[in-house]
Amino acid sequence: MELKREERLDEIGFQGLKLIQTQSDFCFGIDSVLLSDFVRTATDHKEKYLVELGSGNGAVLLLLSRMTKAKEIFGLEVQKEMVSLAKRNIFLNQSEDHIKIEEGDVSNYFFNEPELWKEKVDIVVLNPPYVAKGEGIPNKNLKKHIARQETTATLKDFVKTASYILKDKGELAMVHRPKRLVDIITLMEQSGIEPKTLRFVHPKEGEEPNILLIHGIKGGGRELKVLKPLYVYHKDGLTEEVLRIYGKR
Amino acid sequence: MELKREERLDEIGFQGLKLIQTQSDFCFGIDSVLLSDFVRTATDHKEKYLVELGSGNGAVLLLLSRMTKAKEIFGLEVQKEMVSLAKRNIFLNQSEDHIKIEEGDVSNYFFNEPELWKEKVDIVVLNPPYVAKGEGIPNKNLKKHIARQETTATLKDFVKTASYILKDKGELAMVHRPKRLVDIITLMEQSGIEPKTLRFVHPKEGEEPNILLIHGIKGGGRELKVLKPLYVYHKDGLTEEVLRIYGKR
Repeated sequence: MELKREERLDEIGFQGLKLIQTQSDFCFGIDSVLLSDFVRTATDHKEKYLVELGSGNGAVLLLLSRMTKAKEIFGLEVQKEMVSLAKRNIFLNQSEDHIKIEEGDVSNYFFNEPELWKEKVDIVVLNPPYVAKGEGIPNKNLKKHIARQETTATLKDFVKTASYILKDKGELAMVHRPKRLVDIITLMEQSGIEPKTLRFVHPKEGEEPNILLIHGIKGGGRELKVLKPLYVYHKDGLTEEVLRIYGKR
Repeated sequence: MELKREERLDEIGFQGLKLIQTQSDFCFGIDSVLLSDFVRTATDHKEKYLVELGSGNGAVLLLLSRMTKAKEIFGLEVQKEMVSLAKRNIFLNQSEDHIKIEEGDVSNYFFNEPELWKEKVDIVVLNPPYVAKGEGIPNKNLKKHIARQETTATLKDFVKTASYILKDKGELAMVHRPKRLVDIITLMEQSGIEPKTLRFVHPKEGEEPNILLIHGIKGGGRELKVLKPLYVYHKDGLTEEVLRIYGKR
């Protein structure tokens, strides 16, 4: 496959997955792997229909296709160029039968076709922009800016849309920043998705968490389980648990 | 001081504090110490007016008087016998000038005298019953039952009352169980108290948390900080951090 200027082809060290990424855009990171693994451990994914909102270059779609037993995976992405990149990535990894991706805005795409989408999805996966609208310094690179910052859709749009397409008892899995926990819980409650599993990811022991993983069930009863912390590094490099997630143990 | 039947006098190993406790009632535990230490580290307690809702035998009131620089401490407790026990404990530790305790129900005590209480308090401390109304097995011992389970007042009453007596920008500090996090955040939001600091306490590394500490500011802006986990035990007994909190390091 031919690479465009600024693009690079990475073997991401995960079950032979290859990924075209652009140097300047939002690149594949540990968040994607931890989120996909969290979907595997926290949700009932077997033979289910998964949708990811905000799919970027398709990394999470591909990881989900390898790490879960989902029947079908659908991704929505607002940036035309990213959709095209994701399609090439899906093709590159021979996953076209299993994964579909479309261009569209989370705030309206599904609402236009309720007969196709309303309460049709088993699991929604979210890796939304981390920075709230109006916060942080706008990124010079527009694509990166849209991927990192709430520009077109806000966290509220993501959660509301997730609830709209989820079946009753359907599941949501999300990765985000710990400082947004209050927003996340409040929005999930407002959207009728009950938080069920919460895990914090810390760079290493003794440090504050910089990632949170949260899982909820639409129409579920109130009962939250907070898991043990996940540490990424210890003095000898990546921790056993992270190595296990990456399939190296 | 004379002890009643079933009572025992304990040196609790903390700055010379002595505590009369009854064998069968809810005894002094690590929750009280961690909560008091959390008030010390998370709130701006210097020369402030502190109120504890649900003061039991007065253990937290006494710990707060030793661990913070509060100007005055007031406790409210619904059980007559516990109020009397708390008063003896306060006397026993020569803290009558600094700590007051009254008998009353969190759901109505303060609302009857708004001129005295409405928006008058700097910091509210909560160690509310852990088990939700209607959940769990009722305890044969009624006093223990009221201390452990929401009987007279619910968590909602505790948080609403806290908000009523807190000044604008006044602070709330609470200890509770992690599984109630969604209730706690939802109720704090509804009462206008913004969660600011969250810490989970784990029995030991690799285990799920069994205690949560949360701090909020009435009328504060949205910005939550999740702290590093606090582990109570490691292979050699209590961890360094817990020993430090107990003043042994």
